[in-house]
Amino acid sequence: MMVLITYDVNTETAAGKKRLAKMAKKCTNYGQRVQNSVFECLIEPAMFKQLQDQLEKIMDKEKDSLRFYYLGDEWKTRVYHVGSKKTMDLEGTLII
Amino acid sequence: MMVLITYDVNTETAAGKKRLAKMAKKCTNYGQRVQNSVFECLIEPAMFKQLQDQLEKIMDKEKDSLRFYYLGDEWKTRVYHVGSKKTMDLEGTLII
Repeated sequence: MMVLITYDVNTETAAGKKRLAKMAKKCTNYGQRVQNSVFECLIEPAMFKQLQDQLEKIMDKEKDSLRFYYLGDEWKTRVYHVGSKKTMDLEGTLII
Repeated sequence: MMVLITYDVNTETAAGKKRLAKMAKKCTNYGQRVQNSVFECLIEPAMFKQLQDQLEKIMDKEKDSLRFYYLGDEWKTRVYHVGSKKTMDLEGTLII
């Protein structure tokens, strides 16, 4: 399934900056960074649950915001991009 | 329909900072800011076309990234939030 992950991390403190770096690293492991705080993850439900748990452990729920958008199987028809940072097709054929 | 709008504006220059402010203002007019660069817009298709045109005119397509995610009518089942910045229910009953 395709899940869009967006976050706002409060980086006023050094601890906040650390959380931001950890969140970004974790998301990068599971998906494609399409904007600074926006990731598209093509992921199995069990794996997603794991990622969600990890992100919730990293974040500070009093200060940071984390949102998940489940885009479903027909996700390609739901996305429209304009401008820089073009993305790769996560389901495209890989030629090696 | 519900459209999620996310953007990354390159703010290395004063012109970039101006674009960012303009993009944010425009999106705020049409929807709810759920994170710094993430807006949820419950909007009619004709109005959305207008907003999209305006955003594309403001942005620098060489430097900035703008993404639209069409969440459809069942959008409430597609969104999951954790942490701060709780949002209001855009379709809820308004008591006056």
